[in-house]
Amino acid sequence: MSDFIRIDWLQLQDWCEQILRLIKVPQDRASLIAESLVQANLRGVDSHGVVRVPIYVKRIQKGMVDPRAEIAIESIAPAAARVDGNNTVGVVAGSAALDEVLRLAKSCGTAVVGVKHSNHFGTGAYYALKAIQRDVILIVMSNASQTMPPTGGIRPFIGTNPLTVAIPAGDQHPFILDMATSVVARGKIIVAAEKGEPIPEGWALDKFGRPTTDAAAALEGSVLPFGGYKGYAISLLIDMLAGVLTGAGFGRYVRNMYEDWLHPQNVGHLFLAIDINRFMPAEEFKSRMDQYIRELKAEPKAPGVDEIFIPGEIESRIEEINKKNGIQLPERVLEELNKLSRELGAPSVLTRISGKEMV
Amino acid sequence: MSDFIRIDWLQLQDWCEQILRLIKVPQDRASLIAESLVQANLRGVDSHGVVRVPIYVKRIQKGMVDPRAEIAIESIAPAAARVDGNNTVGVVAGSAALDEVLRLAKSCGTAVVGVKHSNHFGTGAYYALKAIQRDVILIVMSNASQTMPPTGGIRPFIGTNPLTVAIPAGDQHPFILDMATSVVARGKIIVAAEKGEPIPEGWALDKFGRPTTDAAAALEGSVLPFGGYKGYAISLLIDMLAGVLTGAGFGRYVRNMYEDWLHPQNVGHLFLAIDINRFMPAEEFKSRMDQYIRELKAEPKAPGVDEIFIPGEIESRIEEINKKNGIQLPERVLEELNKLSRELGAPSVLTRISGKEMV
Repeated sequence: MSDFIRIDWLQLQDWCEQILRLIKVPQDRASLIAESLVQANLRGVDSHGVVRVPIYVKRIQKGMVDPRAEIAIESIAPAAARVDGNNTVGVVAGSAALDEVLRLAKSCGTAVVGVKHSNHFGTGAYYALKAIQRDVILIVMSNASQTMPPTGGIRPFIGTNPLTVAIPAGDQHPFILDMATSVVARGKIIVAAEKGEPIPEGWALDKFGRPTTDAAAALEGSVLPFGGYKGYAISLLIDMLAGVLTGAGFGRYVRNMYEDWLHPQNVGHLFLAIDINRFMPAEEFKSRMDQYIRELKAEPKAPGVDEIFIPGEIESRIEEINKKNGIQLPERVLEELNKLSRELGAPSVLTRISGKEMV
Repeated sequence: MSDFIRIDWLQLQDWCEQILRLIKVPQDRASLIAESLVQANLRGVDSHGVVRVPIYVKRIQKGMVDPRAEIAIESIAPAAARVDGNNTVGVVAGSAALDEVLRLAKSCGTAVVGVKHSNHFGTGAYYALKAIQRDVILIVMSNASQTMPPTGGIRPFIGTNPLTVAIPAGDQHPFILDMATSVVARGKIIVAAEKGEPIPEGWALDKFGRPTTDAAAALEGSVLPFGGYKGYAISLLIDMLAGVLTGAGFGRYVRNMYEDWLHPQNVGHLFLAIDINRFMPAEEFKSRMDQYIRELKAEPKAPGVDEIFIPGEIESRIEEINKKNGIQLPERVLEELNKLSRELGAPSVLTRISGKEMV
């Protein structure tokens, strides 16, 4: 694995910000976007990290995303608001929605905020980690462009619509579920195709809708929902709540970020927040969570299993390591990012941490 | 299949009510419980139908459930309330929570209600169908006693904690997802064991935590979560929201309805409601839903697939059939119920619809 290098996370964040500033993204928004992308890398979710910078830049340059658009927040009820992202960067619209849902939940005990005219909003964990600092339980859903067939179908109709649920704990790691509703990330199929390796049954269909273990054929077809028809149902309800209810696109009306250069994506998100302190003092809640997690982790383990994890625990540990050791990236991603630096005439390029290469 | 008979649903509901009255369940509560159980049968969810009457009766008779307990509803925020079921019948506590969450959602746009000290609350679809009549989107979660291992574990720690999400439509069937977080209902494993048939891989572990295809061994072991670690994560978050947050039991502190005769179950539920009309006129929302569902159902189908369904659609169709033709029950269930009638000295027994036997 000599083609992996490590980069200091703060350098990477500054670089992202600089790149975004060069294409006229306002400073505060550039910081937000950079923070959210690098946080994904810090937590080991590289599919949602800086590897997205080139596509974000390209969509902004082509006028498909407006980084300066004003966001409209409309109060629609004491505990509900509607956000029109006006086609700005997804994490900018998402962050406005997060602020609003936290404010309303603190005042009403719970709140819902729907977002329309948005774009790819990064990881749900980015919002989740902010919410739990405020002792708020957060549920975030987003729809996405078509990649999965419905149960019984043969071609993409629903997105891998992600679901995020965040619940704080005390001395234990918080519960941070941040999952796509596909059985596997499409990135894993890309990796298998590059290596010429087969993929397990149940991951994908080919372009004719037939189950396939051929990774290359799968990339031309569709990824399957996790858990059969139950995962299909969950993906569907996310599209209905984040898309149909919010006034955003849904089904085929959510455009593909990589392929559609005629329309804005019109992604929709739904944010639901619950203020823990209304139910019981947050400290009491967290000690109940700690007890739960401790008892869970103390359960007898299957052969070959060292530890039972809760969602987000592994990512939280990776974050600690990556903050110290730097973020691990494939060398070709570094090259791609520096190509972008040169194209945009950036004053600095990314450099690896010397002596920290992965071998 | 000559051992299946059909019973008129209204007769079945009257019978349930009568049985519950005989063990001193107040009239209004007896009606509610009977309605919820028979509705499950009407919708083909027989595992949650009248087959539960004997265990409900037994728990009440043994003092494990108090059908006359007063329910305490406490307002904790403009859009949040806490319900203490005081160990009454689950569907009675659940119905009180539903009324409250609908009331609060109508006033605030969204609302959350947590329930503690409850019991098995029937199907989530029972509440869901009431909510959508009010143009409210409902999310219901309940925890349950331990039946599934965590990912990496070998013995039951979490319940098959059900998730219900209900979204109304216009001329299309509503979206009613009502699912256990297990890969399969335990009832299906019981049926396989009775027939001496094997079960598919991935359904269950034996009592030593080893994967098994032996149905009898599976019954002594544990059922697996749907969708691997993602289903485990969803089951876990339901226990945290419905149990840890509400003040109810969680993990091992939710008692088994069939096996624990020393403690109340202390089941917890969480109800979340969103008033559609705040986001857009309900008629507009329903026409967007209809468009979505029509486009989904018009998708090309896999070989052997006649139709693409949305969650709850099949159940809604079965309900129409069962209302006309009667509810289909195994003859041995009828015998068991009539044994209960005789034990309690009920004035009437259940009779099959003549000429309507399934052959």
